[in-house]
Amino acid sequence: MGMVGGGHGAFIGGIHRIAAAIDGEVELVCGAFSSDPAKSKAFGATLYLPENRVYDSFEEMIMKEKQLPEGERMDFVSIVTPNHVHFPPAKMALENGFPVLCDKPLAKTGLLFGLTHNYTGYPMVKEAREIVRSGQLGKIRKVMVEYPQGWLTTKLEGTGSKQADWRTDPKRSGAAGCMGDIGTHAENLAEYITGLQITELCADLTAFVEGRLLDDDGNLLLHFDNGAKGVLSASQICVGDENNLNIRVYGEIGGIEWRQEEPNTLIRKYLGRPKEILRPGVGNLSELAKAHIKVAPPGHPEGFLEAFSNIYRNFARTLRSTLKGETPNPLYADFPTVEDGVRGMAFIETVVEANQSPQKWYKFKT
Amino acid sequence: MGMVGGGHGAFIGGIHRIAAAIDGEVELVCGAFSSDPAKSKAFGATLYLPENRVYDSFEEMIMKEKQLPEGERMDFVSIVTPNHVHFPPAKMALENGFPVLCDKPLAKTGLLFGLTHNYTGYPMVKEAREIVRSGQLGKIRKVMVEYPQGWLTTKLEGTGSKQADWRTDPKRSGAAGCMGDIGTHAENLAEYITGLQITELCADLTAFVEGRLLDDDGNLLLHFDNGAKGVLSASQICVGDENNLNIRVYGEIGGIEWRQEEPNTLIRKYLGRPKEILRPGVGNLSELAKAHIKVAPPGHPEGFLEAFSNIYRNFARTLRSTLKGETPNPLYADFPTVEDGVRGMAFIETVVEANQSPQKWYKFKT
Amino acid sequence: MGMVGGGHGAFIGGIHRIAAAIDGEVELVCGAFSSDPAKSKAFGATLYLPENRVYDSFEEMIMKEKQLPEGERMDFVSIVTPNHVHFPPAKMALENGFPVLCDKPLAKTGLLFGLTHNYTGYPMVKEAREIVRSGQLGKIRKVMVEYPQGWLTTKLEGTGSKQADWRTDPKRSGAAGCMGDIGTHAENLAEYITGLQITELCADLTAFVEGRLLDDDGNLLLHFDNGAKGVLSASQICVGDENNLNIRVYGEIGGIEWRQEEPNTLIRKYLGRPKEILRPGVGNLSELAKAHIKVAPPGHPEGFLEAFSNIYRNFARTLRSTLKGETPNPLYADFPTVEDGVRGMAFIETVVEANQSPQKWYKFKT
Amino acid sequence: MGMVGGGHGAFIGGIHRIAAAIDGEVELVCGAFSSDPAKSKAFGATLYLPENRVYDSFEEMIMKEKQLPEGERMDFVSIVTPNHVHFPPAKMALENGFPVLCDKPLAKTGLLFGLTHNYTGYPMVKEAREIVRSGQLGKIRKVMVEYPQGWLTTKLEGTGSKQADWRTDPKRSGAAGCMGDIGTHAENLAEYITGLQITELCADLTAFVEGRLLDDDGNLLLHFDNGAKGVLSASQICVGDENNLNIRVYGEIGGIEWRQEEPNTLIRKYLGRPKEILRPGVGNLSELAKAHIKVAPPGHPEGFLEAFSNIYRNFARTLRSTLKGETPNPLYADFPTVEDGVRGMAFIETVVEANQSPQKWYKFKT
Repeated sequence: MGMVGGGHGAFIGGIHRIAAAIDGEVELVCGAFSSDPAKSKAFGATLYLPENRVYDSFEEMIMKEKQLPEGERMDFVSIVTPNHVHFPPAKMALENGFPVLCDKPLAKTGLLFGLTHNYTGYPMVKEAREIVRSGQLGKIRKVMVEYPQGWLTTKLEGTGSKQADWRTDPKRSGAAGCMGDIGTHAENLAEYITGLQITELCADLTAFVEGRLLDDDGNLLLHFDNGAKGVLSASQICVGDENNLNIRVYGEIGGIEWRQEEPNTLIRKYLGRPKEILRPGVGNLSELAKAHIKVAPPGHPEGFLEAFSNIYRNFARTLRSTLKGETPNPLYADFPTVEDGVRGMAFIETVVEANQSPQKWYKFKT
Repeated sequence: MGMVGGGHGAFIGGIHRIAAAIDGEVELVCGAFSSDPAKSKAFGATLYLPENRVYDSFEEMIMKEKQLPEGERMDFVSIVTPNHVHFPPAKMALENGFPVLCDKPLAKTGLLFGLTHNYTGYPMVKEAREIVRSGQLGKIRKVMVEYPQGWLTTKLEGTGSKQADWRTDPKRSGAAGCMGDIGTHAENLAEYITGLQITELCADLTAFVEGRLLDDDGNLLLHFDNGAKGVLSASQICVGDENNLNIRVYGEIGGIEWRQEEPNTLIRKYLGRPKEILRPGVGNLSELAKAHIKVAPPGHPEGFLEAFSNIYRNFARTLRSTLKGETPNPLYADFPTVEDGVRGMAFIETVVEANQSPQKWYKFKT
Repeated sequence: MGMVGGGHGAFIGGIHRIAAAIDGEVELVCGAFSSDPAKSKAFGATLYLPENRVYDSFEEMIMKEKQLPEGERMDFVSIVTPNHVHFPPAKMALENGFPVLCDKPLAKTGLLFGLTHNYTGYPMVKEAREIVRSGQLGKIRKVMVEYPQGWLTTKLEGTGSKQADWRTDPKRSGAAGCMGDIGTHAENLAEYITGLQITELCADLTAFVEGRLLDDDGNLLLHFDNGAKGVLSASQICVGDENNLNIRVYGEIGGIEWRQEEPNTLIRKYLGRPKEILRPGVGNLSELAKAHIKVAPPGHPEGFLEAFSNIYRNFARTLRSTLKGETPNPLYADFPTVEDGVRGMAFIETVVEANQSPQKWYKFKT
Repeated sequence: MGMVGGGHGAFIGGIHRIAAAIDGEVELVCGAFSSDPAKSKAFGATLYLPENRVYDSFEEMIMKEKQLPEGERMDFVSIVTPNHVHFPPAKMALENGFPVLCDKPLAKTGLLFGLTHNYTGYPMVKEAREIVRSGQLGKIRKVMVEYPQGWLTTKLEGTGSKQADWRTDPKRSGAAGCMGDIGTHAENLAEYITGLQITELCADLTAFVEGRLLDDDGNLLLHFDNGAKGVLSASQICVGDENNLNIRVYGEIGGIEWRQEEPNTLIRKYLGRPKEILRPGVGNLSELAKAHIKVAPPGHPEGFLEAFSNIYRNFARTLRSTLKGETPNPLYADFPTVEDGVRGMAFIETVVEANQSPQKWYKFKT
């Protein structure tokens, strides 16, 4: 793997590197870690990379790696830059034959494209999806999904926080702030677990912090394609909340609930019966969930990095199968792809327009 | 106190009697417990009431009690009938000089009128209100209030459940089902704690169960009079949920969260600080909260009946002060009144109309 | 009911009065609330008792009530005085034909004697007992029971706290402090739920606070009569803990856990299966549990007072049956009696002696 | 790093490899993965290791690696074999100049020896230690530490479970079963957090499962060197429990509690104040805790692998400093060493003998 971005001070780059390393199936072999060549070099050295594989720019990386023999050159590119500089390296990598793993989607090519919507990598999210898919809840009626954070409660942008700066800057983040940054994860989680698609929605976005240019809070009413209803609320001004992505799904006969901050617990409930606490390694979980558990004896908690590493591992295994001309194992072919990404972009666009509309319901753009 | 309704099989009547008894300040002295005189008599006997104080009808009760000497006759009437038969006894009682405690509001008279919106009787709800009122959270920005229940997940009406029958019958419940039955409690709780008023809302109501005549689920977007935004979701088809009324309030500097099913815990949170677990009897609670704690050593849980009894006690103390011509103590004058009830009725009407409107926002009717 | 003790400032008296009132089956008709006649009179007035039923002393109360006609005189005596003054009124009441409800036991007479070890009044404790009794856990192997409190972390005695004063005074509390005050409740709960008896134990008691005359902390190893092992830990210096009585029971095939501070939840667990969350009103609970639930729709929390009132109600119903010459209903005859109390006294004596013994195991005294 | 053991079916080997990989500071370069040379070769291939670095035996590995040039040869050996085959490879590695990371201790040499008592690698355990060390709790009075598991509830040994087989076999596990396997972790955690040492203890060990040769359950009373008292309970027959290692520490002014299954939460409590919920990334944590947090934005849960990787990372950093002749950074020099291991062995020996003693207290062997 080669990496674009993720140099000094960019926490997400470190997360990606750990996630890639965990399963021992992906090795970081080169990178262009900063738009400043000197910084890129210096940072690459801290990763113990050979000097000649730390590049001044992503263009140089793609061009030079392309000329290396197979087996030695990087097999794919991981792009971990801020939103506004995702597109050029992703496009160039794909055009030069390198599969891409990236936070944000592109138009399709024939190559493998993976999207690091990593909250779907948790074993108990996989289990939730299988519980719905296998009909254990009956027809889905109601979906409550939330993503409250509190870190933008005050005007952090302009105070030296790179994270806050680009996320609240329309030029770099696009038309939505909070909804683009985390609302998309909530949307993706809801559709992933239920297998349903949002068909129309009603939006109420707000920028609560004075002087903020993009929404830092939003509440949505949702209609799904099977008639289910829902609420999606995402916020970065929920003071005191950390990263409390959570979802509840109710069907005609049963329901489930899951919270990202305690990801190893999935509650399943039925009418007139005690709630059940599902946990990795306990009882009869689905094959899909079991294929994403890393730590064998139950009660050894897995966290965000393990979930994230599942994306990398699944991408790598599927890539390896594809390169060998084999059919990828469906248990591992389960990672977010360009379709999820395209849907995420459409979601952002829909929400921003719906927010401006005086009409209650606004069709999901496709 | 005299009681109208609440005979055999009407669980809410028993709840009221316990709540009234807990503080030893209210005594049940008479009642008309059923529209069937024989049933009323039989039921009154099980309560050890003297035969001549168990009446055949509320009309008889009001007329006969009125003729008894003060001190002996009932001091007020508690009405615990289903929604559609609230009005006549309440009106007649007030017209004949008896203060009324009731689940649903009436137009005003000069007499004391209490509303048993009992979830506001919990000590930690009182504390939440005082935390907001004293400015500990700063200006309120966001309110998330939910009331999910699961008991109407299937078509219970028509199967012998009196509770389900009247709640899903437009003739007896009015224009709203779930929103009228429990949505109003969520609305009341949100306005009580924040001291804010909803000014406009957007509604999406659904009757999920086939053949059901009234909504069993609803999601609302809310705008408050200070610019705060919110979501209110109430449902009776949230399979597996019991009575999970809960609220989160976020201000510019702090937030709180509370759940009715664990009512003795109130979480308070600030940016960049550990969350705090507030509990009755621990630390510096407000005078208002302390005046509503019944069990002295911390860690002895209080429940719904204690919260409910606070409504009765406060009503009784305020009534007693009023009868003596004294100014009621504001710590005890804190119970839901006709204004809350009128607002609850307006809420139901607003929600039902907003649901039918194609426009996103609908003004709160007043 | 007549009450001895429980006057101004004695919180436990108020708790008893509420608990007695909740079910509407017990009425407080007279009392001797203080050893100071004037204080007793004054306090009785605040309870709206007629002046001639508020007595100067328990002796006067017992003698005068005895002369009243049946139906008018008190039916039983509730004794809520500190430990060292339990004996004389209890003895005199029993000798004069009045059944007694009391915190501490007496030698037997033919009359009904109830012990307010109230933590066994919770519905989910009843359920736990039935789960064990019905064999759902298999043979019991291990019992972990704890009662940590923190209120005596500092030297509260001598600073004006009556509660702390008598509890830490050997003359008034007896040979044990913490173990007598709360350890006995833990012992009673463990034996009640499991149906087992402790046969020998190993004790390590400590008075951590300088100058304290009685133990404020103790840890015990337990052996039960079926071969089960256990640990009992009780403490009043567990700083920050409120009243965290809790128990876990493990059998050959299943286990349960319960915490007094969240009394409406009982966890049941089996090997290789998801844990279950048992709650009042949900699923198939035992008849015994159901007979002790007061609030009908699930999710309306019940608390300490409701549990306590179950003791009063059961005592009253059993007394009424007994007076009528009927066989008491076993569902209601389930309240702590003189046997539990005698066992509690033996427990205290055993623990104190075992603590002084250099031998590991000390036989439970009987 | 070279690895001894950890081949096919040995889950702990995989855990070690992930833990080593997470921080990108340790690379697996060779191994002897099985006592069966063919199995070792086959397994090494699945890890993408070059064939000539997968050895037939640990002897071969140590001898051949020793002859490789520095920089190319392994820098240290990680030993992940079952207990009874720890000693020979560890001894031989140390004698040949290779530092060792291992589950169980050895007699000292001049070389670095790390012990993978990995539960002390969690950030919030580090925070707990610093809270105690900095005096925030005052003098420690009471320590409650538990390690309940349920996986040996039935007779798993002899049914094909390698894990169960060696753990219940005195020849391979030593004189203690449960107490050796997990009791030592509880002991280590208690001493690590409090900085205290157990001076004497009282033990009650049991083999509950018929035919089991070693204890599967044990309860201990503890005395610490500052006068603190405690309880340690470890069990593998706590049916339904997963890996519920947990600890509570109470001092003269404050207390803390932590549970391994929700490792990102640390509760801190003081007399008469709300409990606080400490979390990674929130508020003012100690430098030590912050140096062990891997995922930057709060609310992204870290798990067991991250804690484990902290041991590897700290070992690697300290080794690197040592090799360079620099003073290791104390923030990273914080990992379990031979002293902890020696203490663990003494603990096992003490517990086994104490269990057989009729005397209550038994001195901790040193």
